[in-house]
Amino acid sequence: MLQNDLLIRAALGQPVSRTPVWVMRQAGRVLPEYRETRARAGSFINLVTNPEMAAEVTVQPVDHLGVDAAIIFSDILVIPEAMGLPYTMDEGKGPFFPSTIETLEDVEALQTTGIAQHLNYVKEALEITLHKLENRVPLIGFAGAPWTIFCYMIEGKGSKEFNKARKVLISQPELAQALLAKITTATIEYAQMQVNTGIHLFQLFDSWAGVLNTEVYEKSILPHVERILAAIQPQIPTTFFAKGAHYALPLMKNISANVIGLDWTIDPRNAREILPGKTLQGNLDPALLYGTDQEIVKSAHAMMDKFGNAPYIGNLGHGVYPDIDPRKLKLYIETIQTR
Amino acid sequence: MLQNDLLIRAALGQPVSRTPVWVMRQAGRVLPEYRETRARAGSFINLVTNPEMAAEVTVQPVDHLGVDAAIIFSDILVIPEAMGLPYTMDEGKGPFFPSTIETLEDVEALQTTGIAQHLNYVKEALEITLHKLENRVPLIGFAGAPWTIFCYMIEGKGSKEFNKARKVLISQPELAQALLAKITTATIEYAQMQVNTGIHLFQLFDSWAGVLNTEVYEKSILPHVERILAAIQPQIPTTFFAKGAHYALPLMKNISANVIGLDWTIDPRNAREILPGKTLQGNLDPALLYGTDQEIVKSAHAMMDKFGNAPYIGNLGHGVYPDIDPRKLKLYIETIQTR
Repeated sequence: MLQNDLLIRAALGQPVSRTPVWVMRQAGRVLPEYRETRARAGSFINLVTNPEMAAEVTVQPVDHLGVDAAIIFSDILVIPEAMGLPYTMDEGKGPFFPSTIETLEDVEALQTTGIAQHLNYVKEALEITLHKLENRVPLIGFAGAPWTIFCYMIEGKGSKEFNKARKVLISQPELAQALLAKITTATIEYAQMQVNTGIHLFQLFDSWAGVLNTEVYEKSILPHVERILAAIQPQIPTTFFAKGAHYALPLMKNISANVIGLDWTIDPRNAREILPGKTLQGNLDPALLYGTDQEIVKSAHAMMDKFGNAPYIGNLGHGVYPDIDPRKLKLYIETIQTR
Repeated sequence: MLQNDLLIRAALGQPVSRTPVWVMRQAGRVLPEYRETRARAGSFINLVTNPEMAAEVTVQPVDHLGVDAAIIFSDILVIPEAMGLPYTMDEGKGPFFPSTIETLEDVEALQTTGIAQHLNYVKEALEITLHKLENRVPLIGFAGAPWTIFCYMIEGKGSKEFNKARKVLISQPELAQALLAKITTATIEYAQMQVNTGIHLFQLFDSWAGVLNTEVYEKSILPHVERILAAIQPQIPTTFFAKGAHYALPLMKNISANVIGLDWTIDPRNAREILPGKTLQGNLDPALLYGTDQEIVKSAHAMMDKFGNAPYIGNLGHGVYPDIDPRKLKLYIETIQTR
């Protein structure tokens, strides 16, 4: 059905005629077309919750950057919102939760049912996007991983090392595990709704995994991650991206993810050795797109050489920065596609 | 001369009767004695610039925690200050530089001479500390590594990923290299003053190394680090600690550091394999000190098992958190010392 199924084939480890590529944060930020829609929306949250406009910005990078997949424009924080913790998003300041989780009673008060219904605007955005895409490229759905959502629910905002969340994880294991389990349950319902609506691949983002350590990640976090991935993988291919979690790569060998995303600090050759059975995705340092055209092409080629010939999906090592010239981003994408 | 020279012996790879241990941020934060002195000082910067009080808090952990080394109480940002960029320190908000580096002219205006003279208060603090220590334990001196200082001079404050500094590093290589070279020159003068005053070991902290990548670190950053270490190592043992820079460990094989500090995400067994000739230092996740006594002892033992029998200095994987119970920190220290 898909006219371009390179991403899915690569995710499944099947042969591809060329390397597929998409870019984290491709929907938004760098494109003038995005800024125009964003201005019309009035606020980030308006844009996320308006299915028509969310679909519009989701499709823009397919049209203007030529990427091999669309990823639904949304936010990982719709899950705490659906569970009963609403947030605001101040420009340049990041998310803020007026209420946070402090006690076991707070955890008990959180919703884990009716999540899909609450997030019906995402379902509608997915439907409109699928219609607009007309099967040109696959549509990626996503959610935040339990630890990352936990961080925001405990701290109420971004943080350098999420020390408060880590303190709760270590010193109040019962509360922490109860909260992680509830987030996981809600996320599975959300991911299942995305699958039912027709996404072609599901990516789980553990944006704050980097502040933990091997033992804690293995014992306290990974079982929740695996519950989500194992629920989805029998239906569509899955990707797990744990930013900063170089230490956790060996733990990912047997998780229910077809694809492992790598941040820019990981040497793809090491990741290949550690994870021989997985498709790898990534991983140029997004800051290298500040370089000259020549440097970008050289860096992209050097990166691809390190990934070698095993199954691979081109991407950056994290989201593209807002002030990157879209022409340079396109150059990076085309360099990977035409090699 | 030193009554307890375990740290120096371990740094030099010589046999020791037991493992020496000190803790990053041991001078300050957790001790009630520190808070008392800090309150008298009125502000953080008053405390840093008052030699008598800085010496007082430097010695406190030797008396109250029983650590095997003192580390001078100071701040890595005294270097930009001495070069001509003063900063303020707001409680709970971190450092702030009213002026930052934007142009090559700004770089040219920076001082690289008279650094030791400008930082005479550090020299005095070192002298008073050495007098108070009466050769009980070694005194560690330190400075921030060029990249970390560069980040603050460009951004003017802390940041999650120092994107502005990384942009300058990639897109304005001439300006960046000129600035890094000047920071390096100033830091060497500062470190040399510390050596001349009588410190026993010098540690260079690259706190923001984690946001870079292997190629950039090797080509653009490490040569400056090496210039500093190579200037000091012929005189006293040196330690290099690049937080988050797991990717750079293989590059540290041949640098002029006796000791490599590890953050808590690094598996000591991997580091031993990568750096067989170095003494290693670290590396428990500081958040694990929020655990029970039993958990702390268990974690400390598991960590020591991973470091094995090669030269080793006990520490945490980063600075101790301010709200850790000093009794638990002491338990961690004694667990390492008595094994």
